[in-house]
Amino acid sequence: MRAAIIHGPQDVRVEDVPDPAMLRPSDAVVRVEASCVCGSDLWRYRGIRPVAHPVRMGHEFVGVVEEVGAEVTRVSPGDFVIAPFAFSCGECVHCRNGVQTSCVRGGGWAGTDADGLPVDGGQGERVRVPLADGTLVAVPGAPGDALLPGLLALSDVMGTGHHAAVRGGVREGSVVAVVGDGAVGLCAILAARRLGAARVVAFSSHAPRQELARRFGADDVIAARGDEGVAALGELLGAEGADVVIEAVGTQGAMEQAVAAARPGGNVGYVGVPNGITALPVKQMFNRNVSLLGGVAPVRAYIDELLPEVLAGTLDPGPVFDLTLPLADVARAYEAMDRREAIKVMLRG
Amino acid sequence: MRAAIIHGPQDVRVEDVPDPAMLRPSDAVVRVEASCVCGSDLWRYRGIRPVAHPVRMGHEFVGVVEEVGAEVTRVSPGDFVIAPFAFSCGECVHCRNGVQTSCVRGGGWAGTDADGLPVDGGQGERVRVPLADGTLVAVPGAPGDALLPGLLALSDVMGTGHHAAVRGGVREGSVVAVVGDGAVGLCAILAARRLGAARVVAFSSHAPRQELARRFGADDVIAARGDEGVAALGELLGAEGADVVIEAVGTQGAMEQAVAAARPGGNVGYVGVPNGITALPVKQMFNRNVSLLGGVAPVRAYIDELLPEVLAGTLDPGPVFDLTLPLADVARAYEAMDRREAIKVMLRG
Repeated sequence: MRAAIIHGPQDVRVEDVPDPAMLRPSDAVVRVEASCVCGSDLWRYRGIRPVAHPVRMGHEFVGVVEEVGAEVTRVSPGDFVIAPFAFSCGECVHCRNGVQTSCVRGGGWAGTDADGLPVDGGQGERVRVPLADGTLVAVPGAPGDALLPGLLALSDVMGTGHHAAVRGGVREGSVVAVVGDGAVGLCAILAARRLGAARVVAFSSHAPRQELARRFGADDVIAARGDEGVAALGELLGAEGADVVIEAVGTQGAMEQAVAAARPGGNVGYVGVPNGITALPVKQMFNRNVSLLGGVAPVRAYIDELLPEVLAGTLDPGPVFDLTLPLADVARAYEAMDRREAIKVMLRG
Repeated sequence: MRAAIIHGPQDVRVEDVPDPAMLRPSDAVVRVEASCVCGSDLWRYRGIRPVAHPVRMGHEFVGVVEEVGAEVTRVSPGDFVIAPFAFSCGECVHCRNGVQTSCVRGGGWAGTDADGLPVDGGQGERVRVPLADGTLVAVPGAPGDALLPGLLALSDVMGTGHHAAVRGGVREGSVVAVVGDGAVGLCAILAARRLGAARVVAFSSHAPRQELARRFGADDVIAARGDEGVAALGELLGAEGADVVIEAVGTQGAMEQAVAAARPGGNVGYVGVPNGITALPVKQMFNRNVSLLGGVAPVRAYIDELLPEVLAGTLDPGPVFDLTLPLADVARAYEAMDRREAIKVMLRG
């Protein structure tokens, strides 16, 4: 089959790789219908994270089950499924606590599983899915192409934005600010609205993202960032300030902006993968009672809740995919994301 | 009148100072019945925080109102009152949000108020109380000496331990670990029990504190600290781990221990004043979804709720005071705290 492999900075290729085989009775093999490129994939592409040897890429995909092992009971061949960005058993204490990203037997795509067996990446034609019963969520019926982007968003960005909003404590009447105008930040706007936020302010200086932020429910958009951005938010919200600030970037600057933007007693819900954060502003957090909640999103925990709304069309994160390319053009997909020409690129088999 | 003044490391004296006068119509003057020494007072005593010039000390006290200004309506001369460790207006948005420590007009004892006027310290015979209506809580009746320690604990340590437990999310059935065996950590045990914790594990290597930890409701006490302490907690709790870890120290080591001791998806409720924390372990927090909640406790927010239980005897943080001395012996009080000969020292006029 064909799959994306990164060889080094700016060097992603689609190559022939072995077809996945069933290795465990808890496995399934899924034919990928759509996958995508993640902001975190760009770390290797940009040389921020070194590429010691060529590796498979991609951790977000939806597709159709082709084969299941003898122990698999919750999905069957022919099922259209969503794969969250990590696989998990669904049975261990951490899965039961809704923290599937800490599953004792789980792991990530495009690496190895708990037994050291290779796991395919999502940017490819097929994927061996370990722990299929705990991992995959079957979508009722046969969703048409129009639903693909929304369903694919449930594999990561929608669940991740939702995690930030949930852990940040967004509820009816909350005033929310969102730092980060990538797909996750934009989905966090949807999530905050869905949870009843009374007002949502997005930070973005990029016209297409500003527009999508408003379409997703942002009442205001602030182009300034850092201290200037915080001051602009203060102008807008007055002394009340933001109850919840969602941090969807992961840099030192974004985290400092988020902490400073939260009102005393407020929360920062963070899901930006920490990247170069040297020191959280703990004294400021302490003195102002700003709490920091979140982490890597256990999106598996949220698919069951969000899926019916995506199917009903009442929740539609699909527009974060503003470019669709065939898998064969994966290099162009990375380039478009890297140059901010696209918010998020969907890849079709 | 007489009041405690620190002149430098290991040099606290009781000296003659001017009697407090009413400076604003929102002021009250309180005759101190009991005050105490705080762990944070020891920073100056130990030379960790420099003493540039002699300063008043003490931020925890209870006493009797002697005089009130024309605008004061909620307390009257003769009332026995509890003063939280910060004064606050009770009316601004932050006070209404229950974050009185961020009051726009508030401040701390033994310093200056928002107008730059001097504010007395609690370790003295009398205190001018700014914003008396927002700050003081009157105790019904005339509490006897037996109630003094419990009421005095409401001025700081009980409310602070409670804040850690509340913000940490302790609820019915929670498994809680407490890092820090000072008065705040011990009170956090009481608070966790009161909020329904199913199991409380205290870290302490000091026999009298271990004993009080058990008396306050700890099921287990672990003497080891750091990685060893975390490993011992793991042995005790198994894979489930601690839902909430309370951090009541404020050092880098204690914070690292607290984060490592929390289960994936768990919370650290922290109230230890950050002291030399260079970097929170953000990657570990992110990967394990351990959230950090808390900050300087707005104890004023909790007195109304906790006071009836202290008066009824169903909540008794009083035993954290294991030594009582006259104000005249304040030097000995600091010494006893510094040498860990006492958990917390109560001072009587």
